[in-house]
Amino acid sequence: MPLQINEIFNASAVLKDVARKTTVIPAPKINPEADIFLKTENLQLTGSFKLRGAYYKISQLSDEEKARGVIACSAGNHAQGVALGATHNGIKALICLPAGAPISKVEATKGYGADVCLVPGVYDDAYAKAMELQKEHGYTFVHPFDDPLVIAGQGTIGLEILEQMPDAEAVIVPIGGGGLIAGVAFAIKTLRPEIKVYGVQSAGAPSMFQSVKEGHRVHLDRVQTIADGIAVKEPGELTFELINQYVDEIVTVTDEETAAAILALLEQQKLVAEGAGAVAVAAAMFNKLPIKGKKVVCLVSGGNVDVTTLSRIVNRGLTKSGRKYSFIIDLDDKPGQLSGVCNVVADQGGNIQSVTHERVNTAAEINGCTVRVEMDTRDQAHIDSIRQALLASGFKVTN
Amino acid sequence: MPLQINEIFNASAVLKDVARKTTVIPAPKINPEADIFLKTENLQLTGSFKLRGAYYKISQLSDEEKARGVIACSAGNHAQGVALGATHNGIKALICLPAGAPISKVEATKGYGADVCLVPGVYDDAYAKAMELQKEHGYTFVHPFDDPLVIAGQGTIGLEILEQMPDAEAVIVPIGGGGLIAGVAFAIKTLRPEIKVYGVQSAGAPSMFQSVKEGHRVHLDRVQTIADGIAVKEPGELTFELINQYVDEIVTVTDEETAAAILALLEQQKLVAEGAGAVAVAAAMFNKLPIKGKKVVCLVSGGNVDVTTLSRIVNRGLTKSGRKYSFIIDLDDKPGQLSGVCNVVADQGGNIQSVTHERVNTAAEINGCTVRVEMDTRDQAHIDSIRQALLASGFKVTN
Repeated sequence: MPLQINEIFNASAVLKDVARKTTVIPAPKINPEADIFLKTENLQLTGSFKLRGAYYKISQLSDEEKARGVIACSAGNHAQGVALGATHNGIKALICLPAGAPISKVEATKGYGADVCLVPGVYDDAYAKAMELQKEHGYTFVHPFDDPLVIAGQGTIGLEILEQMPDAEAVIVPIGGGGLIAGVAFAIKTLRPEIKVYGVQSAGAPSMFQSVKEGHRVHLDRVQTIADGIAVKEPGELTFELINQYVDEIVTVTDEETAAAILALLEQQKLVAEGAGAVAVAAAMFNKLPIKGKKVVCLVSGGNVDVTTLSRIVNRGLTKSGRKYSFIIDLDDKPGQLSGVCNVVADQGGNIQSVTHERVNTAAEINGCTVRVEMDTRDQAHIDSIRQALLASGFKVTN
Repeated sequence: MPLQINEIFNASAVLKDVARKTTVIPAPKINPEADIFLKTENLQLTGSFKLRGAYYKISQLSDEEKARGVIACSAGNHAQGVALGATHNGIKALICLPAGAPISKVEATKGYGADVCLVPGVYDDAYAKAMELQKEHGYTFVHPFDDPLVIAGQGTIGLEILEQMPDAEAVIVPIGGGGLIAGVAFAIKTLRPEIKVYGVQSAGAPSMFQSVKEGHRVHLDRVQTIADGIAVKEPGELTFELINQYVDEIVTVTDEETAAAILALLEQQKLVAEGAGAVAVAAAMFNKLPIKGKKVVCLVSGGNVDVTTLSRIVNRGLTKSGRKYSFIIDLDDKPGQLSGVCNVVADQGGNIQSVTHERVNTAAEINGCTVRVEMDTRDQAHIDSIRQALLASGFKVTN
């Protein structure tokens, strides 16, 4: 076996003064039929668990390797983890990113002290460039997941969960390349084999899910999900082996479910989670796993989401749950029409957010106009009652 | 003295299995010149510290008082605290709210098991109604701040800070009616008088700030701030007395500063704070207090903010920091114009979010049109470079 429990204890000791022991918070509303808790690695330094594995890996390099520096390829959390890990250890880090990476992630990586190399193209191009530079300069490549020391670093979360929640009956963990769950499952199953460890992937990037099902590592040509942090085309070798041995079950969640989990974490728990960070919560919310009546820890793995993206996800969640709606109404083009609409909506307790006039509209009569009235609503029943009231007042609601 | 330190120790014992001991998190980017930590009461059950005082007050009622039930008047966090405190103690709670209170807060209050009485009008009307009902039915009124037991409950946060951050040199606390800071300051100054305790109010609702300055309680006719949780017109009697004695300094922050703090908490700390919850952080961010080189705890008092409001605050913060901008451009009304604009913006690395055509615009030429192009940008310098590129390509940017 390429991993020993002592490696994880050692990682814990190394990370003691670096990584935060993130808090575990009850989340009673996520699924009232279970007893849900959140391990909040989104509150970890750098905003994700990735710091743990990257830091531990870097700390174990030989002096010669340290002197040459490290290189990594990532558009996200791993980049920040490697950057901070290298800076703390006083060594040079070069991070290759695809040129289209979000501005905020590039800035954050630089902010933690790494040099950044923006490579034209997509992730695979950045990866090829990193490999080239590694050979040229003798840097150590820090793999985002398929490395026993990186896995041992992530496994420290398993030790913390056992300490913070000794009576947990199940732990639910996001899966991208599999480094996080490999470490957590190995630690938990070695020490407390009766605790269930479940994995969650995005339905749009189910590489590990498929691989475990088919019994060999599967390569997906295309992955597409709002959980970009776990959009991985092919599992690691080592992670695949560990997951096969230690993980009880893997399920997938849709982007809609992930968005609903992000919104629930924001509103109910006051926590910002990125897509990848919310999939374990989504699996618990939407009863994907046998957790009824059980004490369950969902690992919220990260919170690095662009606020603009977050806004969009929140809007999607609000619309889906009937708390936001846009009526499209054909109006006669004469005074008092719009105020009539506003009065009806106000009487019904809808809170108008915006009104957009659309005068160039073939569907509307020649002397009419079409307005889109966007409003806050309570739920689907509230939307229905507003619609009825508009129709009863003679307005032509066309959607 | 109407408050004894033993009362706060007693409150701690009562709250032990009810209130969460919320985590303290480093926040190094909030102000690089100080050593900032956050006491995260936004992660408290009910989403704010208010549970502590309400619960402790209710727990100390006589059996006869408990049998009659409690009443409170609040559109916000206090309502939820009283509701949960009453439900946990197995007694009846009636909460009077102004009829216009946000839907989400009404639902949350009901969700914690209270009966809700929606009173037409504003807060003062709801308060009058609560007083009337109290007399009629013999309920106990749970004051949101001006009550020694409520203050003792909030003071338990002071004890936790001393335990979690024994080397803190200053604590910064939001002030509305003053119950939170009165309890925290009393606890801290009694046990560790060398630690500074600072208060922060919103510039749009500076009732305690003015009162302390003038040496007597001031009543403001009008308060207006995004920090609605601390929009209080008049300080309490007891809180005023305690604050005069135990608080080192009070400052105010603007809504702009508060919005910037909310955005920073969201992006850097992955925490949702409401306006009132962010004012202490705003004071630290914008150097309102002598904290340079000091180890400082900012109390993030609550996170109950409507996601729609949160979206708006985020947009304000993004615009203010140059990360979002709308160019208004006069175009000739012919094919290819808009695509020309889009190409220039893309070349400069701006990410277009929306394009709005305005055809009815007196300023534009008769054969032209005006478009508003909204985009994500990096900072003010980035906006300037996009503007220059647009002008250099012959486009008429009018803003």
